[in-house]
Parts: sequence; C-alpha cells; structure tokens
Amino acid sequence: MDTTRIAVLGSGPVGRAVAGRLAELGHSVTVGTRDPGGTAAREDYAAWAAMRPDVTLATFAEAAGTAELVVNASGGDVALAVLDAAGAANLAGKVLLDMSNPLDGSAGFPPTLFVKDDDSLGEMVQRAHPEARVVKSLNTMNSALMADPQRLGEDTTVFVSGDDAEAKATVTGLLQQIGHGDVIDLGGIDTARGPEMWLPLWIRINLALGGNDFNLKIVRGPSLR
Amino acid sequence: MDTTRIAVLGSGPVGRAVAGRLAELGHSVTVGTRDPGGTAAREDYAAWAAMRPDVTLATFAEAAGTAELVVNASGGDVALAVLDAAGAANLAGKVLLDMSNPLDGSAGFPPTLFVKDDDSLGEMVQRAHPEARVVKSLNTMNSALMADPQRLGEDTTVFVSGDDAEAKATVTGLLQQIGHGDVIDLGGIDTARGPEMWLPLWIRINLALGGNDFNLKIVRGPSLR
Repeated sequence: MDTTRIAVLGSGPVGRAVAGRLAELGHSVTVGTRDPGGTAAREDYAAWAAMRPDVTLATFAEAAGTAELVVNASGGDVALAVLDAAGAANLAGKVLLDMSNPLDGSAGFPPTLFVKDDDSLGEMVQRAHPEARVVKSLNTMNSALMADPQRLGEDTTVFVSGDDAEAKATVTGLLQQIGHGDVIDLGGIDTARGPEMWLPLWIRINLALGGNDFNLKIVRGPSLR
Repeated sequence: MDTTRIAVLGSGPVGRAVAGRLAELGHSVTVGTRDPGGTAAREDYAAWAAMRPDVTLATFAEAAGTAELVVNASGGDVALAVLDAAGAANLAGKVLLDMSNPLDGSAGFPPTLFVKDDDSLGEMVQRAHPEARVVKSLNTMNSALMADPQRLGEDTTVFVSGDDAEAKATVTGLLQQIGHGDVIDLGGIDTARGPEMWLPLWIRINLALGGNDFNLKIVRGPSLR
C-alpha cells in the first residue's frame, strides 16, 4: 500500500478519529490546527496524542502545505475560515476531502442547514478554492464509523461527490482501505446537496434510537444486482 | 387480521401500488380521484382495475367519507388541493397516512423541495387538517417497495412521524402487514422534515445506480442492538 502524506484539518473528535485511523493504515498524518501550542496543551488532545506519537501537529497552513491530500474535518460553521487559513496555494492541485456539514444551531435544536437544496457546503468549498480537487464524503455518519465502519458487522454505504474523477478514485481507494465496503459515486460536487440534506434525518434517527452507532446501507433489489 | 375500510387518494402508480397491496391483504379499499368516470376510462387505470375488481373507485370526498383510514397518495404539488377536495369533515378524527413529497420541478432537474428544514409538507397537511391524525410515512422509497419491501430479500427501514401515538401504532401495524420489517418512530409530525429531505439524496442514488429498486436500511452497531 502506498503511503500518502495527509493533512487532517481539525483537532476535534472527528479529526482525531480519521487522523488516527489513517496513521494506523500507514499514512504519514499531520493534524492541522489554529494554534498548535494550545491544541497540544488541551487535555483531550494530549491524551489522544500520547497514544498516537506518529501523528504530528502543525498550523493549518503548515499541515496543508506539506500534504499531498487534505482532509477537512472542521465544523461546517468554520470550514471556509479554516480552509482560508490553510491557504489557497497550499490546497491548489490537491485532493481535498471535505467531511463538513452545514449545520446551523443558532435557532436551537434541532439544527437547520445554512445552505441546502440549490447549493451545498461542498460547492461553496469548491468555489472558494477552484484549484483544489474537492471530494465530499464521510459526512453522513458518526466519527467512529467514519474510521471503522466494519464495527457494524456488515457493509454499509458511503457517498462520494466531486467534479474530478481522479480525485474521487483516490478518495474511494482511501475509503476502501479504511473498510468502507460500498462506495457510491453520486456525480459532480453539486450532488453533495443530497448527503448534506441527509443530516436532519440522521439527527432524528439518532434521537429515536438513543445513540449514533448506526449507518445507512443502500439495499439493492433484484434489478440492480 | 382486522379488515379496515381504506381510502387511497390518488389513482396514479403510487396510489395503485398501495391500494392493490392493501386489497390483497384483505382490506376494503376505495381509490379516490377527482373524476371517477375519467379515471375509469383511462387506459392505465382500466388495465389495473381489471386485475383488481375488489377495489372500488369514487370521488375524493366519497372515498374519504366512507373510510376509516385515509392514505394520501397524491403528488406533493397537489396534496393540499386533493385533501381539500376530500373535505375536512371527511378526514376529521381519522388516521391520515401522508406519503407525499414536496418536490418542485419548476426549475428543471433535479427537483428542489418547496418546503424543508424548518417546516415540512407533513406539517402543512396537519395544519390544514388539524382534526385529522396525520402520520407521515412511506415517502422514502419507490411505489413497488412501498407495497412489497420483501422483494429486496432483507429487512429495510421505513419511518413514521406524527403527533398522535395511536395513529402511528395503527400505521405501523399496517406497514408490518405489508412486510416492512423495520419501522422507526421518529417522533412528532415535525420530524417529517427528515424523511422529506432524504429525497434529494434518493434522486441522486437513483441516477447513480441506474434504477430506483433500492431502499435504505439503518444498520445498528453493537451498542444499539
């Protein structure tokens, strides 16, 4: 398996879950954050970093600049600012795996979406960074399942959306390494509207089941097998 | 099994699929339409009705008036007009299973949703008919699977949303008779926003797979079993 230099932008639970799994698979992983000193001193990050000494920590720009592939694991509300801090030149020509969701919690629970239906956060990211090769994926499940879908005991489904076929193939390969057994290519980056609009249903299922340890599986009928 | 007098409002493929299956299960089914004479003379309807002589045809108001349970199988763009034609008095106190989707094709393909995120068509139907006991369900799959989910060879998931617990239990019982093996109760009618916002993703999956013979299954992890 090829080793890829990967920057994971975001030091929260989502970023850590994905960064840890990619390092475990043998990739060279740097977590990008606004203030590396502050992040390193944070109790949750320090506890995790102690178990993952192979993952380095750097600023958003440093992490993106040295990477071949960049993962946006920041929250949807700050995604554009984080990518701006990473720097357009550091993203140009690179595969940018965007996992963020356009959740707007300003009016309380449940959150609404600040972009939807005739636009998406994936498209906003692509427009803000036209030279990056944006692929939307993994935003449809919790972070433990992003990193280890096989814990469900059967294949479930993940989607990829993007305008660059080669970038989607790269991300699909990475997803398969992680253990995602059913990757559906939805089409161009405008198809990110679908997986992003899944979130309101995901939130309600989470509440109904009393936990987020679930994923969707697209079950095909006889005519699609 | 108890026999229920059911009105299915809508004589198109969705209405016919559900009406046929409910009749097959032994229920007393009337299809409601605007103009029964015109519908009976329509080639597609006549061909179907010849195979289902047990299903009767009536106006929206007649069908709803004599029914114990009403199914809205009309398109989202006409759903409120159809229910208005059925008549508030004919719906009052009855379980109203709403299967419609708020699709807006006026700007071309793919359609957008004319209501979403902070409201839903299910809620609009409930507000328009406050005395009806609205349950949103079955809008998340094609009509062949609504009527026969077991053709997929494994249990898949269907959702119910509604403010009336007894009405949801009635609909859940009907869904189980049809063969829906995993019914998730999402909560009040406001949770219909989730299943309605699933449609844009459903449409993209349909395109990606080259057919609509699929359904979603919510796969639970170890902590939710």
